[in-house]
Amino acid sequence: MIDFPYLNEICRKTDSRIVLLVVDGLGGLPHPQTGRSELETANIPNLDALASRSACGVTTPVATGITPGSGPGHLALFGYDPLKYVIGRGVLEAVGIGMDLGPDDIAIRCNFCTLDSDGVLTDRRAGRIPTSESAPLVEQLSNITVPGVEIMVQPVQDYRFVVVIRGDGLGGDVTDTDPQRTGFAPLDPAGRSDAAQRTAHKAARFIESARDILGSRDIANMILMRGFSRRPDWPAFGDAYSLNPGAVAAYPMYRGIASLLGMNVIPTGRDFDAELDTLSDHWDDHDFFFLHYKPADAAGEDGDFDAKVGTLEELDRRIPRLLDLGADVVAVAGDHSTPSTLAAHSWHPVPLMINSQSTNEGLGSPGFNERHCRSGYLGSLPATALPLLLMAHSGKLDKFGA
Amino acid sequence: MIDFPYLNEICRKTDSRIVLLVVDGLGGLPHPQTGRSELETANIPNLDALASRSACGVTTPVATGITPGSGPGHLALFGYDPLKYVIGRGVLEAVGIGMDLGPDDIAIRCNFCTLDSDGVLTDRRAGRIPTSESAPLVEQLSNITVPGVEIMVQPVQDYRFVVVIRGDGLGGDVTDTDPQRTGFAPLDPAGRSDAAQRTAHKAARFIESARDILGSRDIANMILMRGFSRRPDWPAFGDAYSLNPGAVAAYPMYRGIASLLGMNVIPTGRDFDAELDTLSDHWDDHDFFFLHYKPADAAGEDGDFDAKVGTLEELDRRIPRLLDLGADVVAVAGDHSTPSTLAAHSWHPVPLMINSQSTNEGLGSPGFNERHCRSGYLGSLPATALPLLLMAHSGKLDKFGA
Repeated sequence: MIDFPYLNEICRKTDSRIVLLVVDGLGGLPHPQTGRSELETANIPNLDALASRSACGVTTPVATGITPGSGPGHLALFGYDPLKYVIGRGVLEAVGIGMDLGPDDIAIRCNFCTLDSDGVLTDRRAGRIPTSESAPLVEQLSNITVPGVEIMVQPVQDYRFVVVIRGDGLGGDVTDTDPQRTGFAPLDPAGRSDAAQRTAHKAARFIESARDILGSRDIANMILMRGFSRRPDWPAFGDAYSLNPGAVAAYPMYRGIASLLGMNVIPTGRDFDAELDTLSDHWDDHDFFFLHYKPADAAGEDGDFDAKVGTLEELDRRIPRLLDLGADVVAVAGDHSTPSTLAAHSWHPVPLMINSQSTNEGLGSPGFNERHCRSGYLGSLPATALPLLLMAHSGKLDKFGA
Repeated sequence: MIDFPYLNEICRKTDSRIVLLVVDGLGGLPHPQTGRSELETANIPNLDALASRSACGVTTPVATGITPGSGPGHLALFGYDPLKYVIGRGVLEAVGIGMDLGPDDIAIRCNFCTLDSDGVLTDRRAGRIPTSESAPLVEQLSNITVPGVEIMVQPVQDYRFVVVIRGDGLGGDVTDTDPQRTGFAPLDPAGRSDAAQRTAHKAARFIESARDILGSRDIANMILMRGFSRRPDWPAFGDAYSLNPGAVAAYPMYRGIASLLGMNVIPTGRDFDAELDTLSDHWDDHDFFFLHYKPADAAGEDGDFDAKVGTLEELDRRIPRLLDLGADVVAVAGDHSTPSTLAAHSWHPVPLMINSQSTNEGLGSPGFNERHCRSGYLGSLPATALPLLLMAHSGKLDKFGA
């Protein structure tokens, strides 16, 4: 809990090392035919053996019944209450494609849309045009200049892209131009403060130029802007917990979130093997590592039960390599559940295990899955409780009060 | 929960009687060889039988992962959120040795330290000199007078002692003189308000005289002051819950905490048998008794697994005597865990059972230990929830709302 009072009084620097492995979309639901979840179906002897030597439980990322996005799911695991620490949508989109935001940059989530000849919205997503069609359009938009500010335009995927406005004295509190329904014209951006009004003015100039470039097209002849936001100015994770954290993640989104929390983002390769190489190479540089495993979530989102089982087995085969590094505390957690049966993120509590040789002897569960974790030693916890537990298990927390 | 809204509207005076037995450091962890905790190893037929007729659960004293000191651990059991109700370190130290603090007294946690000939700290604890060496020094310091205030000096243990300043218009918000590291001179006390500035001035006069007395010594030639504080002015436990509480505790620390919460502290002897005599003698005087059992914590802190098992068996033999008194509700709780394997207080949840003949029939657990309590009827609770549960089980709470 980043907002735990007295945190700086009780955190203690030690030589012990913590690895938090976040398995994206870890939790699942039983397969209708077998009654067993992805974790229960997978052959994961190494994770199961680790669970037998770990304190197990389940975490709730945001609140009961709430399905988190990647941002809130990860913030919670690092102790930031996702209801208090909210990342702007523009910033999250920019960070998700690896853009490096300065503290005063305004990031905007944009997409192509289609207007009729009266300027009225007929399709808010321009028929979800694929990247192959949108990329040349983004390329054209990236030539737009607006006096007094620097403009960066980057494609995301399909009909989506990001605009960043860099300049002095810009505020982020600007209204969306998306009216949220067809049959209306796009709205003008409006600032809710003087600084935001300056941003709105620059954005309006950009929109005008975009209309000039796109206006003659049949579809994707206009853009919508949403989620104007600035990089948040939050307490750094390392400062809050007196840690020196390093982040190892193959996907830009997770590197971006780590960077927003002030972690040192270590360059790595494109898959988990590369991540483990990076972890090993930088083992002496940090006392806390955030290690991210993406494939489980992707398979779950695809609704592919067997594929998700496969990603968990792939992960399991690499667990011995992770354990061989000799961390004092290894935790396996998830940012949210992504049950294959729902083919989407979900609100279901997420399995957790914390392995610590010194403090968890004899508290283990028979296996690493939803069922065993639910009845495990840690019971059901808010995800925001995790960092203090990791600190406690690694001997990095002093007693509170005499 | 002392801060539960409408508390005074729903509390009801009745003839029923509650005993809350606090077993200090009750919770433990499995022995590495046997996989069984102290409670699971101990032969405790009476506590186990009581569990079979009780609602069982586990309590978290402060927050997940937080290891509580004795102060926070007890405050929580009485419903005071230990993050909101914080006892000053000086007050806790004074209360711990049985000093009787007035509402305006300033208590200061002091210790001997060693300076070199340049006045620079070389040892913040004066080589941890034993009580036999420090007692005569404390005796000398107790002769110091400061104009306009009364000064009390009492030994604690080894290199530690307490100074209390009694006078009009003194504030407690004074900075420590301990610079927290060697190589620096002790700091001057400084007040953060006019009243605190008066205290700082008196403290500085005391320090000057102490330097005159000690200065020619090789070690323990100076003192450090920390934790300036005043007795807190909190709602009394009895007023909050409409109870008439009596405290029976052999150790000064726990009598002191009870006194800070406005309980009637009943004089008693030096061990649990004496406490039970006292309880019996005063049975008709109170409707709530806080009964404290210390030995389990001491054995746990010593890291002596077998000794802790022994203290639990000692306690168990006295349970029939406690039950014979005929309380309507008997609860057995702990202020925190003290696993022998860690030889220290810890953050692990603490077993709890609440016995009430009228309301708990058929809800029992097979035994009184961490494992059975974790899966018991009450599940996992914040410790601050305990008083309302005790009130409910004894028929002292009206319905909330119509």
